[in-house]
Amino acid sequence: MSVPHLTTALTGPLLELERKILAAQPEIEHWFRNQWQEHTPPFYGSVDLRNAAYKLAPVDMNLFPGGFNNLNPDFHPLAVQAAMMALEGYCPDARRILLIPENHTRNLFYLQNVAALAKILRQAGMVVRIGSMNPEITAPTELDLPDGSKMLQEPVVRAGNRVGLGADLSEFDPCVVLLNNDLSAGIPDLLKNIEQTLLPPLHAGWAVRRKTGHFAAYDRVVADFAKIIDIDPWLINPYFEHVDGLDFHAREGEEKLAATIDAMIKKIAVKYAEYGISQTPFVIVKANAGTYGMGIMSVKSGEELIGLNRKQRNKMSVIKEGVTVHDVIVQEGVPTFETIDDGVAEPVVYMLDRFVIGGFYRVHTDRGIDENLNAPGMHFKPLAFATPLSTPDCDGSPDCEANRFYAYGVVARLALLAGSLELESDPFEGSL
Amino acid sequence: MSVPHLTTALTGPLLELERKILAAQPEIEHWFRNQWQEHTPPFYGSVDLRNAAYKLAPVDMNLFPGGFNNLNPDFHPLAVQAAMMALEGYCPDARRILLIPENHTRNLFYLQNVAALAKILRQAGMVVRIGSMNPEITAPTELDLPDGSKMLQEPVVRAGNRVGLGADLSEFDPCVVLLNNDLSAGIPDLLKNIEQTLLPPLHAGWAVRRKTGHFAAYDRVVADFAKIIDIDPWLINPYFEHVDGLDFHAREGEEKLAATIDAMIKKIAVKYAEYGISQTPFVIVKANAGTYGMGIMSVKSGEELIGLNRKQRNKMSVIKEGVTVHDVIVQEGVPTFETIDDGVAEPVVYMLDRFVIGGFYRVHTDRGIDENLNAPGMHFKPLAFATPLSTPDCDGSPDCEANRFYAYGVVARLALLAGSLELESDPFEGSL
Repeated sequence: MSVPHLTTALTGPLLELERKILAAQPEIEHWFRNQWQEHTPPFYGSVDLRNAAYKLAPVDMNLFPGGFNNLNPDFHPLAVQAAMMALEGYCPDARRILLIPENHTRNLFYLQNVAALAKILRQAGMVVRIGSMNPEITAPTELDLPDGSKMLQEPVVRAGNRVGLGADLSEFDPCVVLLNNDLSAGIPDLLKNIEQTLLPPLHAGWAVRRKTGHFAAYDRVVADFAKIIDIDPWLINPYFEHVDGLDFHAREGEEKLAATIDAMIKKIAVKYAEYGISQTPFVIVKANAGTYGMGIMSVKSGEELIGLNRKQRNKMSVIKEGVTVHDVIVQEGVPTFETIDDGVAEPVVYMLDRFVIGGFYRVHTDRGIDENLNAPGMHFKPLAFATPLSTPDCDGSPDCEANRFYAYGVVARLALLAGSLELESDPFEGSL
Repeated sequence: MSVPHLTTALTGPLLELERKILAAQPEIEHWFRNQWQEHTPPFYGSVDLRNAAYKLAPVDMNLFPGGFNNLNPDFHPLAVQAAMMALEGYCPDARRILLIPENHTRNLFYLQNVAALAKILRQAGMVVRIGSMNPEITAPTELDLPDGSKMLQEPVVRAGNRVGLGADLSEFDPCVVLLNNDLSAGIPDLLKNIEQTLLPPLHAGWAVRRKTGHFAAYDRVVADFAKIIDIDPWLINPYFEHVDGLDFHAREGEEKLAATIDAMIKKIAVKYAEYGISQTPFVIVKANAGTYGMGIMSVKSGEELIGLNRKQRNKMSVIKEGVTVHDVIVQEGVPTFETIDDGVAEPVVYMLDRFVIGGFYRVHTDRGIDENLNAPGMHFKPLAFATPLSTPDCDGSPDCEANRFYAYGVVARLALLAGSLELESDPFEGSL
C-alpha cells in the first residue's frame, strides 16, 4: 500500500503536539470512551484537517460525507464493522434501510460514493434500497456507474407518517432512512415527522445547521480535551467569528465583515509572535451554511473584502441550490504544509459511528498553501492512510506515519464529538 | 494478499448451505444483533471449524485463544476496533489491563501470541502490563522474542481483594484482569473473589468448563438459527454424547464408551444415507476438559477403543497440567475436505467481542481428513482469509472466496454465542 510523501516541513512544534497526543493515548482513549457514554456520535461524518506543522486543526465537518468511494478499499471491513455498531446503537431491530442521496444523478463521482456507502450497509447485514427526492426521478431509474454496474434509484413515497418505495410503500417499507443529502435546499415536507428512524436528523442538514454552531461546540470540546494533554487549545483550534446581516450584492455589511477580519488577523499575529511563526496571517470567509467548496474566500486583510468586483461578489453571495448568503463564518486560516505529487494537500478523515474508518488526501496542484482546496481541479489520493488512524504504533517515534495519522484521527474525532453536541439541541423538538 | 487453495471437493450440498446463508444475510445479521442485545459475548474466542462440503460445523471453541500471532496483520485494525468495543461494553472506565498468560515462558510461539494480544489492547488505548502466575517468575523477568524485542513478565501480587504488580500493587493496580490462561491446573486462590473485572470469568477456565456444556449450548443456538435459514440443524451441528466415570488405566467404563461410539456411528450412517454421502462415519473421543490437542482419538467403531494398548491408554488418560481424564465427549467426526500445500487443513476463526477479526488455517501434512489436526507437526497459514469473514460480497456467487468465508464467520459466531450461553450460568455465584 503506498503512502503519500509528507513534506519535511512537518517538524518542530507539531512533533511536540504529536508527542503529547501519543504519550497521553490511554488517557485520550479513556476520555473518548467516557464522552461516547454521554454523547451519541453522529451516524457518520468527515472532517477536513489542516496540518500547519505548528498547528493541526479541523476546518470543516461534514455530516453527510460524500467520498466513501475515495476510501482505501483495504479498510472496507473496518467500515462494515463500524456500521454494524452504528446500527446496533441507533436501531438494533432494523433490517431495511432507505438511502436518500443528493439529487445529482449525472455526477458519476457522487454516484460511486452512494454505491460504496450502500455496499458498506449491505455488508453490515441491511437490505438497502436507494430512494430519490429528485423531481426528475418519477419512476424506478437505472443509472450507469463507471465500473459497468448499475444503480437503481426509485422515487421516495410517503404514506401516512412513513416513507418508502412503491404505492403505499408496497415495494419497500424501511426501518431506517439514511440521508446522504445535506438538505441545502431546505427541509422537504416529505421527511417531516416521519415515524421511522431518520439519520442524521433533519436539523443536521444545511437548511438548519451553521458552521459557527459547529465551531462553538468544538470550542467546548477542545477546552476539555486541551486540559487532558496540557496544551494551548489554539494548537488544535482555529479562531472563528460569526458575521451576519450581509448582502454581498448590495455591499451591505462589508465594513463590519472587514473589521472582523482585521481584528482576527491581529489576534493570529499575536499567536504567531508567541510561537515564533513567520507565516503571514490570513483568514477564510465562508458561507455559514455553505458546502461543496462554494462561497469561500481566503483573505489577508479586511480591505481585500471591500474591494471585491462583481464576479467575486457573485461568487460569495450564492451557494449550493442557489441559496443566498447573508451569514458567514470568519475562520482563522490554517496553512497546510503537506504536499503530494507537487500539489498542496489536506487530509480528510472519515468516521462511521465513533470510529475512524479511513481517509484520503484532497490535493490541488494549482492552489497555494493558504487557499481552499475544495475547488474544481482538486483530486483525491484514496490510498493515503497506510495505517488506519486509530492504531498508533506505541513504540514508534512521532515521525513514523502511523503516529502522525493517530494524531489526525484524534483531532478528527474531537470534531466528530462537536458534531454530537451540535445535534443534541434539536430546534424542531415537537414543532415539525 | 495470498489465498490458500481450496480443493474442488467444495461443491454440491455445501454450496446449497452457503447459498442459503448468503441469501438470508440480512435476517442472519438481524438475528445476531438481537442475540447480542440479550447475551453478552465472551471477551474473545476462537472456533475450530470443519468443512466437509456436505456439512460445515464447529468442532471446538476456545475461550482463551492462543494464536493472535497467526492472524493476518492487515486485519489488525479490525481487532483494535473490536477490542475498543469489548472494553466499552465490559468496563468503559478502564485504563489499565493486567494480562495473565499461560505459564510456558519457553514457548516462543505462545509468547508471540501474548505480544500480539498486548499490542491490540495497547492500540485500543489501554495501559497493558503482563503478570505471570508462573512460580518460576519471582521477579520482573525479560523474555526474548524471536523478532528481537523483549517481553517483561512480572509476578502477579494480591493485596486484599485486588491483584496487580509490585508490593501492595505499588507498581500497577489494574482496572481489568484479562486471562489468556485457561486454568487447566485449577482455579488459583490468587484470582478468587477479586474485585476487579476479570475476563473471561473463572468458570470459563477448563477447571470448570466442559466441552459437553458448550455443545449443549450450541444445540440451543442451532435449533433457533436453523429455523431462520430453514436447514436441517445437522448440517452445521455435529452429534455429541457425554460419557463419564472412565478410568483408561484401569479399563473402567470402556464398554459404556464403546457402546456410545457404536450408537453414534449408526446415527451418522443414517444421515449419510439420507444425504447420499459415501464417507465412512467416524467419531472423535476427546477429554471433556481437554485442550492443546491432548486426549483426542479418532475411531470408526467402539471396538477400536476396547483394544487400546498401554501407550494409547496413557495418551488418552492424561491431558494438560497432568490432569487425569474421567470424562469425555464423543463427537461426530466431521472430515475436512480442505487441503493447502498438500496438507489437510481446517479453518480457525478468531473473534473479539462479537466481531470476527480474522482467522487462519491449521494445516497438517501427515494427518488424514478424519483425524485431529491439532497435533505436533501442524503449521499455520496466517494469511488464509483474504477477506474478513463478516463481509460477503452480496453480488458474488457462493463459489467466490469472500462468500465461503462469510459462511465460516456465521458458523463461528454461532459457536461464540453458545460460549455466551455457557458463561451465563456461573457455578460460583456467591460461593467462591
